[in-house]
Amino acid sequence: MPEPTSVESLRIDARRLENDLAELARIGRDDESSGLHRRAFTAAEAASRAWLAEKLKSAGLEPRVDGAVNLGARWPDALAGPCVMTGSHLDTVPGAGRLDGALGVVAGLEALRVISEHQVELTRPVELVAFSDEEGRFGGMFGSQAMSGKLTPETIDRAVDLDGISLEQAMAEAGLHAHDALAAEREPGSIHAFVELHIEQGPVLEREGASIGLVDAITGLFRWDVRFIGEANHAGTTPMDMRRDAFRGVAEFTSQIEALLEGHGGTRSRATIGRIELVPGAANVVPGEARFSLEVRDTEAATLTRLATEFRRALNGISQSRDLKLEIEAVSQIEPVACHGRVTNAITNACESLGLPCFTLPSGAAHDTQMIADIAPAGMIFVPSRGGRSHSPAEWTAPADIERGANVLLQSLIELAR
Amino acid sequence: MPEPTSVESLRIDARRLENDLAELARIGRDDESSGLHRRAFTAAEAASRAWLAEKLKSAGLEPRVDGAVNLGARWPDALAGPCVMTGSHLDTVPGAGRLDGALGVVAGLEALRVISEHQVELTRPVELVAFSDEEGRFGGMFGSQAMSGKLTPETIDRAVDLDGISLEQAMAEAGLHAHDALAAEREPGSIHAFVELHIEQGPVLEREGASIGLVDAITGLFRWDVRFIGEANHAGTTPMDMRRDAFRGVAEFTSQIEALLEGHGGTRSRATIGRIELVPGAANVVPGEARFSLEVRDTEAATLTRLATEFRRALNGISQSRDLKLEIEAVSQIEPVACHGRVTNAITNACESLGLPCFTLPSGAAHDTQMIADIAPAGMIFVPSRGGRSHSPAEWTAPADIERGANVLLQSLIELAR
Repeated sequence: MPEPTSVESLRIDARRLENDLAELARIGRDDESSGLHRRAFTAAEAASRAWLAEKLKSAGLEPRVDGAVNLGARWPDALAGPCVMTGSHLDTVPGAGRLDGALGVVAGLEALRVISEHQVELTRPVELVAFSDEEGRFGGMFGSQAMSGKLTPETIDRAVDLDGISLEQAMAEAGLHAHDALAAEREPGSIHAFVELHIEQGPVLEREGASIGLVDAITGLFRWDVRFIGEANHAGTTPMDMRRDAFRGVAEFTSQIEALLEGHGGTRSRATIGRIELVPGAANVVPGEARFSLEVRDTEAATLTRLATEFRRALNGISQSRDLKLEIEAVSQIEPVACHGRVTNAITNACESLGLPCFTLPSGAAHDTQMIADIAPAGMIFVPSRGGRSHSPAEWTAPADIERGANVLLQSLIELAR
Repeated sequence: MPEPTSVESLRIDARRLENDLAELARIGRDDESSGLHRRAFTAAEAASRAWLAEKLKSAGLEPRVDGAVNLGARWPDALAGPCVMTGSHLDTVPGAGRLDGALGVVAGLEALRVISEHQVELTRPVELVAFSDEEGRFGGMFGSQAMSGKLTPETIDRAVDLDGISLEQAMAEAGLHAHDALAAEREPGSIHAFVELHIEQGPVLEREGASIGLVDAITGLFRWDVRFIGEANHAGTTPMDMRRDAFRGVAEFTSQIEALLEGHGGTRSRATIGRIELVPGAANVVPGEARFSLEVRDTEAATLTRLATEFRRALNGISQSRDLKLEIEAVSQIEPVACHGRVTNAITNACESLGLPCFTLPSGAAHDTQMIADIAPAGMIFVPSRGGRSHSPAEWTAPADIERGANVLLQSLIELAR
């Protein structure tokens, strides 16, 4: 056992952390170029869980798996009462990088090891969790939804992946029972605080030259499928003033987006048209129909509501002026989440004690934290993503930033658990 | 043999014409709703040629087929020297209406019958031609290209349909030899004039309330495949001002089209974006690449050249202001064709003698006339298309307009051949 140390001077072992990341990055990797493949409930993903369980055991920590296949450990194991939780996920998108999800799990493992090795005196246990199916083979954030009580027998029965394999079948093939996930729900008050360390997956910290991002909110969003329906006509024989060109409607709307965000949104508002299909879709036919996706994000629920109203108004105006039929289908809606002062304060204090400036920003992507925030005070720490790249083998964060982020996590957990 | 009549009072037999159209519309029709299917060199299309050959024989006319499978007849057969030609095509797009192509062939057949039945005294023979593969199973206007000397052994060898079947193979299966098409070329000066009767395939005559369209020019066009290449990014984590959104570039360009046509085109200019593909094409990803078609038409070569310059300038400007890489591939270019005064005068005179007002307009679509115009004075007569509809079972022209158009064709042919 090492010499007693002041807890403020405790640091993670950067070499051990880097080694763990490297080991984990070999699981689900067919070749260098195509990235990692650890989709939920596949053999590769199971191997990553087995790897984590072994790591926990080697550190003298007792692996636990709940009904939703969330895997973790707690220290001190005997300490009762609400825990301070940290975690992220081991599953990946197809062709992933090595850090999305993995960093939060491995840094949490390292923090737990440092705390247990140094027998830090705590009033609350610290718990690590690797959540299952965050990336959404079956809809997304399955493990954290289960823990925060959002699953129902019906949602479990309906869940199917893109190949038509049901969640129940996929879990059964891995020796698991989908409906056990309902038992993973935690009691109200059983989590004192939740902190997730994650890569930013965006370009802001790099632009700001900051190593640490303090996340103050996770954006909500609405996603619509929009259709403009005009009339398909011969591109040669139909004069410009006799057309009901559905694509011209989309182009006009798209050109209004900047002004709409400026007038009715904020600096954190985002609007994206990422998908469009023209019907019939031939070079020599005026498009009679255009179907496109509209996704709008913000950290404030009121701003999202206002933007939905204004976007609908703009689409209606174009529909009328261009004589196009308009159909809007609301596909999904996720409420924004504000991070809890208990957690953001702990992160701010940790940065101060480590002498690290931090930059406050929202999370533009969804995370398990969003789910856990419903049942516990929750927050996130970001580290920079080079070029903002993620969900790609090009995903990269400087080792020094990884070390800084893990130390902020360690000190935040200690402050919250002491 | 009927009584001698003044040729100006000769009229087509509307009932016989309608009956021929109805018979022809039963060839290649599987059911009422799906339209006609007489793709070039299929059994259905061969059946339509056999039908025409029978009709010609019944009228005492000798069917002739050239190497390009253009089928027709000439009257008086013994008369030497340059002919006055009329014709259109029997092949159809998949799911076609009953008039596109068919009307010009059947009305030409009827005109030839009337002229021969009345033994009209002519100084030049009148010739009917049903051109092969106008609709482009193998590129378009195959028969009229062959007749006007535009085919080469290489273009024949390269021609392949969308299913990968070569022209050579398709013709061989129909008992034909593709390279025989080279022999279909006509001698310079062998065609005194060419007139084609066709449905407008656009909405202009209907809007103008005119039964007869005098075509003064056939539009040319250029077609580009354009690519804007930016950067694909997470739609949540990438602030609006850090995006290189390829679709925003397309939308900005599309919104400029109206002003570009107004400033640099004319009332006959058309520009269409009929096809677009976004990459990767997901609702939650900023599109890193947009590929789209741009098709621009006009009846003046100089206007087309000017529009090409200005469209290129506009695309370049957006490429620079939005930091998007721009690639323009010129896919095709067809020169506009002015109709010949010899033919437009004959059509105008025919309308006057029939007491029919005619409306002058361009053809926005391509026709066999465009090819024949290279080797002979050529022109076209249009009749209205209800709702501008064509290439669809909804294609329809009022029987009275069909009769008027056929009489204008008859009188034009007589004037040109006397």
